[in-house]
Amino acid sequence: MSQTLTKFSQRRRWAADQAISFLMQQGVEHPHVVSLAAGLVDPGSLPVAEAIEAARDVLSDDLRARSALQYGTTQGDLRLRRQLVDYHNRLEQTSTLAASRTVTADEIVCTTGSQQLLALLADALLDPGDICLVAAPTYFVFLGVLEGVGARAIALPADEHGLRMDALTAELQRLESVGELSRVKLIYVVSEFENPTGISLSLERRAELVEIAKHWSQRRGETIYVLEDAAYRELHYGPPSWGRFSTCPPTGVTNSNDGHVENLPHDPSVWSFDVAGDTVIHAGTFSKSFAPGLRVGFALMPRELRDAVNDLKGNQDFGSANFNQHLLAELLASGRFATHAEEVRAAYRIKRDAMLSAADEFFSDLPGVSWVHPHGGLYVWMSLPPQVATGFDSTLFCRAVDVEQVMYVPGELCFGGPREQRERNHMRLSFGVQSPDGIREGMRRLSRAVRAVL
Amino acid sequence: MSQTLTKFSQRRRWAADQAISFLMQQGVEHPHVVSLAAGLVDPGSLPVAEAIEAARDVLSDDLRARSALQYGTTQGDLRLRRQLVDYHNRLEQTSTLAASRTVTADEIVCTTGSQQLLALLADALLDPGDICLVAAPTYFVFLGVLEGVGARAIALPADEHGLRMDALTAELQRLESVGELSRVKLIYVVSEFENPTGISLSLERRAELVEIAKHWSQRRGETIYVLEDAAYRELHYGPPSWGRFSTCPPTGVTNSNDGHVENLPHDPSVWSFDVAGDTVIHAGTFSKSFAPGLRVGFALMPRELRDAVNDLKGNQDFGSANFNQHLLAELLASGRFATHAEEVRAAYRIKRDAMLSAADEFFSDLPGVSWVHPHGGLYVWMSLPPQVATGFDSTLFCRAVDVEQVMYVPGELCFGGPREQRERNHMRLSFGVQSPDGIREGMRRLSRAVRAVL
Repeated sequence: MSQTLTKFSQRRRWAADQAISFLMQQGVEHPHVVSLAAGLVDPGSLPVAEAIEAARDVLSDDLRARSALQYGTTQGDLRLRRQLVDYHNRLEQTSTLAASRTVTADEIVCTTGSQQLLALLADALLDPGDICLVAAPTYFVFLGVLEGVGARAIALPADEHGLRMDALTAELQRLESVGELSRVKLIYVVSEFENPTGISLSLERRAELVEIAKHWSQRRGETIYVLEDAAYRELHYGPPSWGRFSTCPPTGVTNSNDGHVENLPHDPSVWSFDVAGDTVIHAGTFSKSFAPGLRVGFALMPRELRDAVNDLKGNQDFGSANFNQHLLAELLASGRFATHAEEVRAAYRIKRDAMLSAADEFFSDLPGVSWVHPHGGLYVWMSLPPQVATGFDSTLFCRAVDVEQVMYVPGELCFGGPREQRERNHMRLSFGVQSPDGIREGMRRLSRAVRAVL
Repeated sequence: MSQTLTKFSQRRRWAADQAISFLMQQGVEHPHVVSLAAGLVDPGSLPVAEAIEAARDVLSDDLRARSALQYGTTQGDLRLRRQLVDYHNRLEQTSTLAASRTVTADEIVCTTGSQQLLALLADALLDPGDICLVAAPTYFVFLGVLEGVGARAIALPADEHGLRMDALTAELQRLESVGELSRVKLIYVVSEFENPTGISLSLERRAELVEIAKHWSQRRGETIYVLEDAAYRELHYGPPSWGRFSTCPPTGVTNSNDGHVENLPHDPSVWSFDVAGDTVIHAGTFSKSFAPGLRVGFALMPRELRDAVNDLKGNQDFGSANFNQHLLAELLASGRFATHAEEVRAAYRIKRDAMLSAADEFFSDLPGVSWVHPHGGLYVWMSLPPQVATGFDSTLFCRAVDVEQVMYVPGELCFGGPREQRERNHMRLSFGVQSPDGIREGMRRLSRAVRAVL
């Protein structure tokens, strides 16, 4: 009997060859590599004690236990959604600009991590050929999602204040002039400590972004939605303790803000500027601030989109794990989440500082090498001289992985749009997984690889 | 400012108006109704103690706890997949026909319930207009999934041995003659205690189904896959203790097989007949046999499909909740799952018998009313005289919900193909949620509604 072929769907063909699979494969094939690539979280700060307590509390009340072990609803456990209302409203109200907008449980959908929300929204809004505007660079897995539905990502310039609003307006004008405005359905921004650059959208631009989206929605008569990915919102550490561009002198691993990160000023979300509630989707997750193994994400969204997302999610899984939603509700209600989030921030601040310190130590004498000093998130974005490529097929990547045994995420993965137009000389360096010593060792190895190539 | 419109994707439009949403809404709006509709599981037999023990065991070992709370892989936790290998191979080897095929961890993908697997496979294989062959009736949520990707479901006759193989062959011949064979990508069967009919595919037909799929795959040069949905495989109770067609005399709620259901003969899966391993996908879940709140499903599949499913799942959520997979691995390894599954079978057997007994009591004097006596699963399929419609807009449904305060799933939802060709005189009655007394009361109410309409 001869072998028959499989005729896959167009969707499957679009989803093939995602960079994330290659990266994970590299990780598996090179187990001794120091990974500055993996987007995993700090294993040391994973909330074992908190998970034990939450599981005990949820399961020791028989009625509640049975409710947690039963099917939930597609939209998500009401108890969790009510806790999220408090959580989100408090975050907005303690921001630098007291928000005039609050959320209700009705507007919240719970998902399997915020990734599922991104995928569901892409599915709900984007037909093949439709356009999503993104920053250059941006979260590369979302670029894969866009590719997976056959949509076009148009990458727009960003600077130290995030996505540039003049560039956004100019692109919308250009698209209108070429008759493509009707294909624009979505503007995607990682508003807090963007993956990969660590840069947040400035307060002024948050307001402006919502205005621009609404203006152009009016102009074309159909809504252009803004998808605000706030996955790193909780991971804020303030300015680095040291570093080339820091005003603070090195003081060991103790940051002068230690223990007070909760009280650092933070900006209101992009969502909070959408007072009419018809334009912005705000996606959050507990994967970064608590535990990715629970895969609890959530989003605030306009009702019309909520129904669409629920219908699509109904077909996909009719609800994420109900048990985990009960755990998160318990963790939020008991205050254990808030306490843990402070610990997580303290741990990551030390690691962020360790990476910046190692960058100073090993890279500062290399001409044309620079890096962002992030105030939050999990990544340092490092730029090499323009002629030094960093991609999977580059001399640098091979030398880093095979000779120096260190891995990073090539920056070009984070650029949407045509492959030949992508910047090829950046690296995304994660301080999430390694210990401070591991981070230093990884940076030392990486600097040797860069030196060899320069 | 005038309101702008949302232009949703084609996908969203296909996913709108699923019956499941209407049913859930009915449940919310009529909280006092006795639901024989809900596909939820028996709340009394939910494994609270087992979940406590599993959570304790996973979280008390610090290394393992951190692994469970961290991101997992898209394909699923290796420890769980290894447990599933043992679990599945043991099931096959103790079947009526010792299987010649075993599975490896490499061929298994873990999903958010088996529902996600059904959706991922539809996404991987079906372009708009492609064809999936199904039984009439079949699992209505899967019909929604097919609709959601724009595929065509062609419904084929089934009898007391499941999907009819002569009808399958005839339809493939017909499709070939009209030049549509190339659009056939999938044959979907619920092999064990089909939702909604409770009927299993006979042993002979399992072998024949694989042969037919392979024959026609060869003939057209592209694989026609068989998707075996085995969601109810663990829920086998043997023949009813009583009932119109039963040979056993009523003996109270004690079944003569009590305590020995584990040892009842069961058939090898459809999957086991696919010795070359290139045709059948076998989907399983712990939602029915353990706890839906954990949302752990899994599938065995050909490697080529596994890669496709992983790529699509990578975009959708890059992995279902890792913590829950660790819990299931622990439950399988400790033997607690097996013990609990026996308890679940004992509880459902009593409820199955209660529903059949109530059907005898309240319906046996109604001319033209008949029902299946299932040996497993969660449903009794009841047929009314052909002229009595049971749909959402029927006199019977309104009378049942509004006057008698009882709800069922209209059988017409379970028929694929053109709406006007669907049989309209059936009801799916679930014995999953209600107590034996609740089941009797629900059946009493339902019989009054039927009497009023007849």
